[in-house]
Amino acid sequence: MKETQPRLEIGMLLYPGLTLLDLIGPQTVFSWFSNIHLVWKTTDLIFTDTGIGIQPTSTFETCPRDLDVVFAPGGFGQQAIMDDPEVLAFLADRGSRARYVTSVCSGSLLLGAAGLLKGYKATSHWSAREALRMFEAEPVDARVVVDRNRITGGGVTAGIDFGLVLLAKLRGNEAAKLTQLAMEYDPDPPFDAGSPKSAGPAIVEQAMAVMAAEMGKLAR
Amino acid sequence: MKETQPRLEIGMLLYPGLTLLDLIGPQTVFSWFSNIHLVWKTTDLIFTDTGIGIQPTSTFETCPRDLDVVFAPGGFGQQAIMDDPEVLAFLADRGSRARYVTSVCSGSLLLGAAGLLKGYKATSHWSAREALRMFEAEPVDARVVVDRNRITGGGVTAGIDFGLVLLAKLRGNEAAKLTQLAMEYDPDPPFDAGSPKSAGPAIVEQAMAVMAAEMGKLAR
Repeated sequence: MKETQPRLEIGMLLYPGLTLLDLIGPQTVFSWFSNIHLVWKTTDLIFTDTGIGIQPTSTFETCPRDLDVVFAPGGFGQQAIMDDPEVLAFLADRGSRARYVTSVCSGSLLLGAAGLLKGYKATSHWSAREALRMFEAEPVDARVVVDRNRITGGGVTAGIDFGLVLLAKLRGNEAAKLTQLAMEYDPDPPFDAGSPKSAGPAIVEQAMAVMAAEMGKLAR
Repeated sequence: MKETQPRLEIGMLLYPGLTLLDLIGPQTVFSWFSNIHLVWKTTDLIFTDTGIGIQPTSTFETCPRDLDVVFAPGGFGQQAIMDDPEVLAFLADRGSRARYVTSVCSGSLLLGAAGLLKGYKATSHWSAREALRMFEAEPVDARVVVDRNRITGGGVTAGIDFGLVLLAKLRGNEAAKLTQLAMEYDPDPPFDAGSPKSAGPAIVEQAMAVMAAEMGKLAR
């Protein structure tokens, strides 16, 4: 695979309490074809929702103005920045010019809060999907939703599928396939419990309780 | 889900040039039930194979002596530490007492170099699997290989399947299912190209070339 096109410029929002796998799934998919900018207010270490510290590479000021992709991950920390004017201004500004405006998991609520999903179909983590209506987006129960240049993924691990769908659009099916092979993405879940329907109501209730407790811990 | 058992103690090796998704897949799976120790020689920031900086939480000295799980991720940086006496001594020591000795991707070669896979069936990234024979391990073409208390996963994304298999052993199927649901792990790859067989020889050749180039970049 000869890389004859310029590298993609991808701006990925960081924030305290993000779910790291929301970010690292698509970041890994894009990495061979992209300059990836991990963006926050400062370049101080960010602590994610399970306590892992990662290093931003850009600030809202230094991130390139014109991006191929602007991306928002989800996570328990998402709620705390839903009315943060700096975050929303960054997303609205880069989103107004980016080729693709994207998210995984509850990151779509951040896009919504920035006014970027009004009149668009979108998805989110299953537990957060209906909240998209607050931003005049139309929730869709699907792993990856493409509506014009808005591409949103479902919860956490959906970021891998999302990334491959978007990479295929940007660099072609061959690039996406070789990336899928390199990542050995030939999934084989040991249980059939990855959606509320397959998991059933008892497991859904337990998951909601654990997620609420985890969110509570982060708030302390 | 009431957490009535003590949290699992999980030691996950970090090193420069590791593949971050190898680590973050299982780390996310384990996170609700575990104290996770990200271990390296120092607690200075580690730069992974795509340049993302993450923060160790423990050193080889401060990591708990008795672990439920010792884990080695893979990545282009694996080769550079294959004869590092500190790394191998850490893995051999913790591995001698851990309930489970585990890896994802080319991390199994590190376990092998530490003498932990002699006489065991194991797997690795598809491109590295045959190299397990150097350490008297028996390579198996499977996504997750369980041989007594050695559990090894295939390449990169196999870490999610690996994590769920191991969590089910440690905390039961219910815990694994609610984690799978919370992570919305209901995969839907856009292509059938996640294994050498499904991708076909042309894509395999391209992937090998890109991986070699990426490894070369890291060495510079």
